[in-house]
Amino acid sequence: MGDLERLPVGIIGASGYGGVQLVRLLMDHPGVDVVYLGGESSAGKGFAELYPHLGHRVNLTIEPIDINTIVSRCQVVFLSLPNGLAHKLAPSLLSKGLKVLDLSADYRFSKLETYKSWYGGERHDQETAATAVYGLPELYRDRISSAELVGCPGCYVTTSLLAIAPLLKQGLIIPDTAIIDAKSGTSGGGRKAKTNLLLAEADSSLAPYGVTHHRHTPEIEQICSHLASHEVRVQFTPHLVPMVRGILATVYATLQDPGLVREDLFTIYTAFYRASPFVRVLPSGTYPQTKWACGTNLCYIGVEVDSRTDRVIVMSAIDNLLKGQAGQAVQCLNLMMGWDETLGLPQLSFYP
Amino acid sequence: MGDLERLPVGIIGASGYGGVQLVRLLMDHPGVDVVYLGGESSAGKGFAELYPHLGHRVNLTIEPIDINTIVSRCQVVFLSLPNGLAHKLAPSLLSKGLKVLDLSADYRFSKLETYKSWYGGERHDQETAATAVYGLPELYRDRISSAELVGCPGCYVTTSLLAIAPLLKQGLIIPDTAIIDAKSGTSGGGRKAKTNLLLAEADSSLAPYGVTHHRHTPEIEQICSHLASHEVRVQFTPHLVPMVRGILATVYATLQDPGLVREDLFTIYTAFYRASPFVRVLPSGTYPQTKWACGTNLCYIGVEVDSRTDRVIVMSAIDNLLKGQAGQAVQCLNLMMGWDETLGLPQLSFYP
Amino acid sequence: MGDLERLPVGIIGASGYGGVQLVRLLMDHPGVDVVYLGGESSAGKGFAELYPHLGHRVNLTIEPIDINTIVSRCQVVFLSLPNGLAHKLAPSLLSKGLKVLDLSADYRFSKLETYKSWYGGERHDQETAATAVYGLPELYRDRISSAELVGCPGCYVTTSLLAIAPLLKQGLIIPDTAIIDAKSGTSGGGRKAKTNLLLAEADSSLAPYGVTHHRHTPEIEQICSHLASHEVRVQFTPHLVPMVRGILATVYATLQDPGLVREDLFTIYTAFYRASPFVRVLPSGTYPQTKWACGTNLCYIGVEVDSRTDRVIVMSAIDNLLKGQAGQAVQCLNLMMGWDETLGLPQLSFYP
Amino acid sequence: MGDLERLPVGIIGASGYGGVQLVRLLMDHPGVDVVYLGGESSAGKGFAELYPHLGHRVNLTIEPIDINTIVSRCQVVFLSLPNGLAHKLAPSLLSKGLKVLDLSADYRFSKLETYKSWYGGERHDQETAATAVYGLPELYRDRISSAELVGCPGCYVTTSLLAIAPLLKQGLIIPDTAIIDAKSGTSGGGRKAKTNLLLAEADSSLAPYGVTHHRHTPEIEQICSHLASHEVRVQFTPHLVPMVRGILATVYATLQDPGLVREDLFTIYTAFYRASPFVRVLPSGTYPQTKWACGTNLCYIGVEVDSRTDRVIVMSAIDNLLKGQAGQAVQCLNLMMGWDETLGLPQLSFYP
Repeated sequence: MGDLERLPVGIIGASGYGGVQLVRLLMDHPGVDVVYLGGESSAGKGFAELYPHLGHRVNLTIEPIDINTIVSRCQVVFLSLPNGLAHKLAPSLLSKGLKVLDLSADYRFSKLETYKSWYGGERHDQETAATAVYGLPELYRDRISSAELVGCPGCYVTTSLLAIAPLLKQGLIIPDTAIIDAKSGTSGGGRKAKTNLLLAEADSSLAPYGVTHHRHTPEIEQICSHLASHEVRVQFTPHLVPMVRGILATVYATLQDPGLVREDLFTIYTAFYRASPFVRVLPSGTYPQTKWACGTNLCYIGVEVDSRTDRVIVMSAIDNLLKGQAGQAVQCLNLMMGWDETLGLPQLSFYP
Repeated sequence: MGDLERLPVGIIGASGYGGVQLVRLLMDHPGVDVVYLGGESSAGKGFAELYPHLGHRVNLTIEPIDINTIVSRCQVVFLSLPNGLAHKLAPSLLSKGLKVLDLSADYRFSKLETYKSWYGGERHDQETAATAVYGLPELYRDRISSAELVGCPGCYVTTSLLAIAPLLKQGLIIPDTAIIDAKSGTSGGGRKAKTNLLLAEADSSLAPYGVTHHRHTPEIEQICSHLASHEVRVQFTPHLVPMVRGILATVYATLQDPGLVREDLFTIYTAFYRASPFVRVLPSGTYPQTKWACGTNLCYIGVEVDSRTDRVIVMSAIDNLLKGQAGQAVQCLNLMMGWDETLGLPQLSFYP
Repeated sequence: MGDLERLPVGIIGASGYGGVQLVRLLMDHPGVDVVYLGGESSAGKGFAELYPHLGHRVNLTIEPIDINTIVSRCQVVFLSLPNGLAHKLAPSLLSKGLKVLDLSADYRFSKLETYKSWYGGERHDQETAATAVYGLPELYRDRISSAELVGCPGCYVTTSLLAIAPLLKQGLIIPDTAIIDAKSGTSGGGRKAKTNLLLAEADSSLAPYGVTHHRHTPEIEQICSHLASHEVRVQFTPHLVPMVRGILATVYATLQDPGLVREDLFTIYTAFYRASPFVRVLPSGTYPQTKWACGTNLCYIGVEVDSRTDRVIVMSAIDNLLKGQAGQAVQCLNLMMGWDETLGLPQLSFYP
Repeated sequence: MGDLERLPVGIIGASGYGGVQLVRLLMDHPGVDVVYLGGESSAGKGFAELYPHLGHRVNLTIEPIDINTIVSRCQVVFLSLPNGLAHKLAPSLLSKGLKVLDLSADYRFSKLETYKSWYGGERHDQETAATAVYGLPELYRDRISSAELVGCPGCYVTTSLLAIAPLLKQGLIIPDTAIIDAKSGTSGGGRKAKTNLLLAEADSSLAPYGVTHHRHTPEIEQICSHLASHEVRVQFTPHLVPMVRGILATVYATLQDPGLVREDLFTIYTAFYRASPFVRVLPSGTYPQTKWACGTNLCYIGVEVDSRTDRVIVMSAIDNLLKGQAGQAVQCLNLMMGWDETLGLPQLSFYP
C-alpha cells in the first residue's frame, strides 16, 4: 500500500476525545492520509495547541466546517460531533460522492421517529437515515462493506450488544429477562468541563445514573429486537467508574434451556464470533477486566451459567474510546474500503 | 459519661483494616477505653509501627492472644480475624462473662452446616453459634440489644440486605427475580499483599469475580429467606472497582404489583427505616454515590421503578470499612450497652 | 459547653469545597451554631441541593449576601470566597463588631501593594489589611488569639511554611538555597468545572504548573523573610497529583552547619512544635505520606540530612482542605474564642 | 523486511512488567520473532496463564532458563530479571556469540566496585562488565550501535539524565547545585505483591521514599560525572504517585550565567536532541505531563528559567515501562542491528 494510493480523509469534530483518538489511529494507519481537520469552536487553532503532546506528528490546523473545502480534499469523512449536528452535513457530503462515518447518534436509528423521541430536535433527513448502516461490524459486516453512510454505535451499546447478541440470535434466553448493568470510565462523558466529571468529584466514587431512562436503551432494544426477530425490552443501567477509560457490561438473563452449561456457551460464543478478529471469548472461568482491552480495539467476553438460578451471566469489556468509538469507526472504514478489517488497529493492550 | 465508667474493650486482630478502623473509632468513642490489642503475627509490635500516623494517639503494643489476659482486662472484645479463628476464642470469652462482637463469618450462620459447606474447617461450636445474633441493627435491633455474642455482617452483605430488605419483608417483589450487582473498592480485600490488589493491577480497571459462586451468596440468602418467610435465591455478582473505599449494590427485581411508582417505594423505604439513624433514603430521582458515605456509618439508598419492565431498581451505598465492617460493630456495641445507637460514629462524610 | 452559649456563626461562600468542609466541621463543633449560609450564584438553593449527602443534617438555605442580615444573626463570619471579594465585606462586618476569618488571599499580605501586584484589582482597605493577623497558629498563635480579622493561609503555603519555619527561625540554613517542590491533589483547584481538572485529564497523570511564577511564592517569601528577619527568596514549584485530597512539600536547603545530623533536626523540630497539637514530627527515618493526614487537621513532618551534599530535606504532608483550608480556619476560631485549640477538629485519619 | 530475515530473540524474565512490555513491543516489531520466553518461578506456565488478555497473540510457554536451549534458538537475548542475576547468564551467552540487552542494574556500572557497594552480592565478571555499554541512546548512540552487551538504564535514571544532560555537557550549571525531585507511578515497583503498593495503600496518597540514599543516586552521578568531565554530586529524591505508569523529574540547578533566558535553553536543548527521535523539547511555557508520554517511547522536556533565583528548572516525563524500561531496550536493539531507531516503537500516546 504505497503512499500514492493513500486515501485522503477528513475528521470533523477533531477537538474532542473521539477526534483525538481518530487522529492518533489514522496518523499510524497505513492506508490513510489525514488531510483535513474541521471544527467550530476550535476553528483556527493548531491541533497541537489542543493536544501539545502530538505536536511532533500532527501539524494540521483545525479549519472551519465548509462543505466545498471538504469535498475538494477528502474522499471519506468522519463526523465526531455532538448529537444533532451530523444530519446537517451528511446529506451534502454523500451527494458529492464522499463516504461518511458518523460517530454520533444521528444515524444509528432506522426510524427517525425513535431518534426524535429520545434526542429531540428538528430533522427531515429520513431518506438519508434510511440508507445508513449500523456500524457494528460483528453483526453487520456485509452491509457495512457496501455502505456509503455508517452510523457507528458508541461505547455502552457496543459492549452490551456484543455480550447479548449470540443469546438473542440463537434464542437461548427469555428475552425480556435481560438486564444490562454497565460500568464506564469518565472519558465517555467527553472533554467538556462538567462538575460531576471533575477528578475531585468522580475519583474514589462510584455512581449510577440515568436509571431506567438512559437514551441508549432504545438503541440497544432496536438491535436486540432485530436479532431476536421480535420486540425485546432490556433493563439498562449505566454507572460512572473512577477511571479514565474502559467499560464493562454485566448481562443477566434467564436461559430458555436450563440444561446449558458454561462450556456450551463458550462453544456457541466462539462459533458466533469466529470471523470477528476483535472479539475474544475467554476460556471458561476467566472473566474480562477492562484494563485488558485498554488501548486496543478488542472486546473480551466471559460467560458463566448459574445452575442454581437458571441464569446466564455474560461479561464484556472494551476500551470505550477505541472499540467503543474511534476504533470502531476505523474498523468500519477498513470494511468499506475492502481492506483487512484489522488494518491500523491495535490488538495488544498497554497493560498494566 | 465520665472517665470512671468507661468500658474496657479489647480488639483481637488489630493489625488489619478492620482493626485499624476499630481502633480509630474507639479511641474517639466517649464510652470506651481501648485497653488491649491482640494479634498473632504482629504480637510484640507497637501499634504505631504498623500505623505510624496514629502514633500520637495510640501507644499500645499488640500482645499475644491470651484468654486470661483478655478476661482480666476487658469486658467486651472485638474479634477482627480471618474466617475460621473466632470460634476458637469466642466460647471461652463468653463463658467468662465477656461480650463478644465478631467481624468474621464465623457467627453469621445460624446453621453450622451452611458455614462449613461454604467455608470449610472443623467446628463443633453449634451451641455457641446458636446463641449468636446477626449483627445488622436495622433488621435485628432488639435481638442485638440483649445479645452476648454478635456476628457482624460484612460490606457486601450489609449493602445488599439494606437495599432489598423492605422489598422482601413487605412482599413487594417476586423473590427469585432478585439480582444484586455489587461493586466494591479494593480495601475490602484487606491489607495482605495480593497481586490482583496491587495499584498497578487494580487501578484504571474494573473486574467481576466470584461470578455465581461467591460465598456471600448463602449469607444473603439466609437473611432474605428469613425476611420473606420462605426460601429465596438471589443472583449475586461482585466487582472490583479502582478505588480504596466504598461499595455500591444495584439491585434488580420484578414487582409483584406493576402499579407501584417510585414515590410509593420512597414512602415504604422511609417508613421501614424510620427508626434507623444510619439509613438515609434519598428523595425520588436522586441516586447514591459511594463517596457520600465514605468516612461515615451511613447507608444511602435510592429507589427507582421502571414501568416499561415492571422492575424496581434499588441502589445502596456504604463505606465498606465502616458500615460494612468496623462501624457496624461499634453500632452493635452501642445497642448491646444500651447507649445511643449513634454514639461515637461519624455521620458527615469527608466529601470530596 | 451547653447549647445556650453556642456561638452563632455564618459562612459566606458555602457552596465550594472550603464551604462544605466548614459546614461539616462546624456542624459537629461543640461550641458553634451555624446560623447563616451566604452565596451569590447559589443564593436561594437549599444546601442539600448542592450536597445531597448532607441533607440529613443540614437543612439551611443559601441566602443572598446581605450585611444587615449577617450582623443581626452572627457573631463570627467565615469568608470562603474567590480572591478579591473578601475586602468588600470584611470592613463592614468588623465595624459592626463581628470577628472575621477570611480563607482567601485578601488579608494574607501586610502590604496591600504586594497583594495588588500579584492578584490585581482595585483596593483601598490598607487600614483594615493592617489589622489582619496571618492565620497560621503554629507561628502566630498569640496574635491570632487577640485578632478580630484573620487571613488564613491556604494549602500550599501552610505545608511549605510548617516545613521550613524551624530552619529559618533558628538560622540553620542558607536561606536562598531553599527549594520547595510541592505536590497537591486536585481538590485544591476548587469545585468549578475546568477541563484540566477533569478526571479524564488529571487521572493517571502528574503535571507541574505555575513554574517560577506561582502567586503563592510572594506569600511564602513574606513569612520566610519575617522568620529569618531579612529578605528570603524561595523556589516554589507546584504539581498536580492524580488524587482528590492531600498535599506534600519536599523542601531542600543547604545547611549552615554541615555537622548537623537528622537526630539533631528531629530534636529541634520537636521542640519548635512542642506547643502545637496539630504538628507531628516523625521519628528519624520515617517520612510522611499524604494519606496519613487525610481527614484530619494534622501536619506530619519528616526530616532528613544528606551528609554527602550538606543539605537538609524536610517533607511535610497535610490535608489540603482541612489544615490547608477549613480546618485551619476553625483552629484559628478556637484561638480567637479562647477555646481549646483542637476543639471540633479531627485528629485520626480515615486511613486507608 | 520479510519474514525470512526476522531476528530470533529470547526474553528471560518474561513474567514481570518489563517482560510483558517486551513481549508486547516485540510481537508487533517488524524485524523480530520472539522464539523463547524464559523464567524460573514461572517456568512451565503458558504465558497466557499469566496474562490472559494476550492469549490471542502469544501462545508461548515460559521455559526453564537453559543456556544451550537459548543459544540454539536465539541471536539476541533480553534479560529482564531482578538485580544480581544477569551477570550469571550474560558471560555464557556472549561467549556463544549472542547479543545481550540487560534491563537490570547489573551492567550499568563501569566499576564493579560501585555496583557491589550499593547492590551487594558476590561478582567476578569485571571483564564482561567492562565491555558493557550504557544503554541510553540519546547519550551513547554510537557506542550502543557496535555493542554486544548493553546495560539499559531504568526509569528514574533515564528521566533524570535526559533532563540534566545538556546542562552538564554544556557547562551551563554549577554542578553540585543539582537537585532531582522525581515522582513515579507504582508499576515501577514491579508485579510482586508488596503491601505498600496495594491500591488500598498507595491510591489517594503521595509518599517520598529512599530520601538521600536511593541506589539510583550513584548511577545518575556516574553519568553526570562523565558528562561534566569531573565528579558531580546530585540530590535525588523519589516519590510514589497514585497512578500506574509515568514518571516525572523536576530538576533544579543554579545557572553559571544568570543572563540565560528560557528561550536560550529551548534552543540549546533542541540542538542537543536534534538527532534523537524520541526526545521532544516543548515550546517555551509548556510543561510536560506524564500522561502525554504514556504508551510511547517518548521523553517530553520543558525548560524554565527563574531570573529571581538564577535557577534553571527542567521537567522531563516518560512512560516508566517503555522509555524507562522495555521501550529503551528495543530502541537499543534497533541501534545494535543497524535498524531505524524508531522501528516498532509507539510514538503517539493513548491519551487521555
